[in-house]
Amino acid sequence: MRTIDWDDEDNSVVLIDQTKLPKEFTVLEFKDVSAIAEAIKDLKVRGAPALGVVGGLGIALAAQTSNAKGPKDLIEDLERAAKILRDTRPTAVNLFWGIDRALNKAKTGRSVTQIKKIALDEAKKMADEDVQKCRDIGKHGAALLKDGDVVLTHCNAGKMACVDWGTALGIVRSAIKDSKRIKVIACETRPLNQGSRITTWELLQDRIPVTLITDSMIGHVIKTGEVDNVIVGADRIVEDAIFNKIGTYTLSVVAKKHGVPFYVAAPSSTFDFDKRASDIEIEERDPSELKYFGKEQIAPPEVKAYNPAFDATPMENVSAIITEYGVLYPPFEFEEILESWQRRKG
Amino acid sequence: MRTIDWDDEDNSVVLIDQTKLPKEFTVLEFKDVSAIAEAIKDLKVRGAPALGVVGGLGIALAAQTSNAKGPKDLIEDLERAAKILRDTRPTAVNLFWGIDRALNKAKTGRSVTQIKKIALDEAKKMADEDVQKCRDIGKHGAALLKDGDVVLTHCNAGKMACVDWGTALGIVRSAIKDSKRIKVIACETRPLNQGSRITTWELLQDRIPVTLITDSMIGHVIKTGEVDNVIVGADRIVEDAIFNKIGTYTLSVVAKKHGVPFYVAAPSSTFDFDKRASDIEIEERDPSELKYFGKEQIAPPEVKAYNPAFDATPMENVSAIITEYGVLYPPFEFEEILESWQRRKG
Repeated sequence: MRTIDWDDEDNSVVLIDQTKLPKEFTVLEFKDVSAIAEAIKDLKVRGAPALGVVGGLGIALAAQTSNAKGPKDLIEDLERAAKILRDTRPTAVNLFWGIDRALNKAKTGRSVTQIKKIALDEAKKMADEDVQKCRDIGKHGAALLKDGDVVLTHCNAGKMACVDWGTALGIVRSAIKDSKRIKVIACETRPLNQGSRITTWELLQDRIPVTLITDSMIGHVIKTGEVDNVIVGADRIVEDAIFNKIGTYTLSVVAKKHGVPFYVAAPSSTFDFDKRASDIEIEERDPSELKYFGKEQIAPPEVKAYNPAFDATPMENVSAIITEYGVLYPPFEFEEILESWQRRKG
Repeated sequence: MRTIDWDDEDNSVVLIDQTKLPKEFTVLEFKDVSAIAEAIKDLKVRGAPALGVVGGLGIALAAQTSNAKGPKDLIEDLERAAKILRDTRPTAVNLFWGIDRALNKAKTGRSVTQIKKIALDEAKKMADEDVQKCRDIGKHGAALLKDGDVVLTHCNAGKMACVDWGTALGIVRSAIKDSKRIKVIACETRPLNQGSRITTWELLQDRIPVTLITDSMIGHVIKTGEVDNVIVGADRIVEDAIFNKIGTYTLSVVAKKHGVPFYVAAPSSTFDFDKRASDIEIEERDPSELKYFGKEQIAPPEVKAYNPAFDATPMENVSAIITEYGVLYPPFEFEEILESWQRRKG
């Protein structure tokens, strides 16, 4: 099944609960936008592309469940839903992009019926497009991998971070589809272990060879020559930096020091052309995430802990960015990139 | 209390169980060498200087509990005990140093009574010397720290890794004793979380300000200027590298990239003058350490995991090595160091 989907029978949003993996495979059903917002905050759904689609589906759900009698009231309901969805996680730009895309499209409707249909159609289209974008990222990125390559990845930029296929792991899947033998090294990705819980799980499902390491082992495995490429996803790309899961910057420094290519795989919607690194708020999560693992206490409860969810990797550490439109190489001229994409979209 | 001690009343070795911290403070008592060996394997006692002393106390215990009637039989018993103690962890050289020192001294005895006394006296002397060495390391290292400095450390090179005071954290303690205001950032140190469990615990006991981070956050906190010095311990120092807890190499790369001093604090017994990095076996521990935290499952049980306990940091990444004899600076000429220490010992 897709990681996130719309259920036509029940008029609901369904998604795989990522906090329960790998112990339990649970599908959650949402008929209420506030519940979706809670699920985003709790990381039951996470991953930049997935958040974009869930933003769109959240607006679609708000439209279907609204009791508004007229189009103006309905749009007001959608604006309220948009605010609830936006107030969940500050760093990932795809979420805002997805919310805005569905909302703006809905605003073109003239009647309640029309608005409801437009919002839902647009959200479904976003989900379908996400799958196609990951396939395209996979195709472009696979060309960078050789038969026998070992790819090191951080966090989860796989199908579980998208609707299907994945960005970083989509590249691995596409290369394997092209008959290349690819192995993956997955960093566990503390503190929430998306690498050990989700990346290893989805790769094992597809029988893709994967070895789990702790985040601190990156220096050792890269120095000893076990890694041919690093591929990570991105939560927001600005002119001078890639924002991605905490630990990405450390990884980029080590990869650069050892001349290992450092690739970022992300859809074009991850680009924030108006911003620079200094403009971006880095989400700080609850310090308790470093003190407990489930019921296991791993630090004194009273100790101060710092828990930024993301870090910024400067462009000088990035070998290439792989989008659905192709591979971008340094110096990543943002004006040129934007123009070329606008030309492409006509 | 000391982390490790000899109990004269019970003729036993006592030590704080480090696997139970910070949840429980438990003191274990050992009257049998095999049980000590198991405790070393299970990391109930860990840390290079502590392992040296426990090696010596292990030999002392074997001597006290031996039923040998003659000196030859007793020394044979001690040789057997030495083998049991050596076959626990292959990387830390202090353990071997401690075992050999007590064993060789014991061999100078002429009678059973004399051997028993010599072994115990030597082991107790090693424990006392360890405390003094840490005080001396602390004094020399403290001179490198300024009032207001933030020290980032990895794993636990504190009093819990020694008999008392600590090496890396001994420097922090000595600087604070000199009225400098020092704050510590502790990396949690996956997979066994010696940083979050032990370093934070012992610093909180002494009311030293400490902030816990994940290992992957080092790049972010160093880049944002939050770190003035990195200080780590060492398990073995050879001509071309420092062997220390996995993650140390990654940390050294990031520190060097940002011009933050990277200090290694270790007693002279950590130096292995006959070896180079390529000679050293890196202990690989059970992959399950990456899949479970206590009872919490954090990865699919069937996934492959790689679990080296140490890595090698090349000397080019090291700003200084702080021993009980003073501060060593690059290029760390091993022949010169050895000569000067031999002169000092007379």
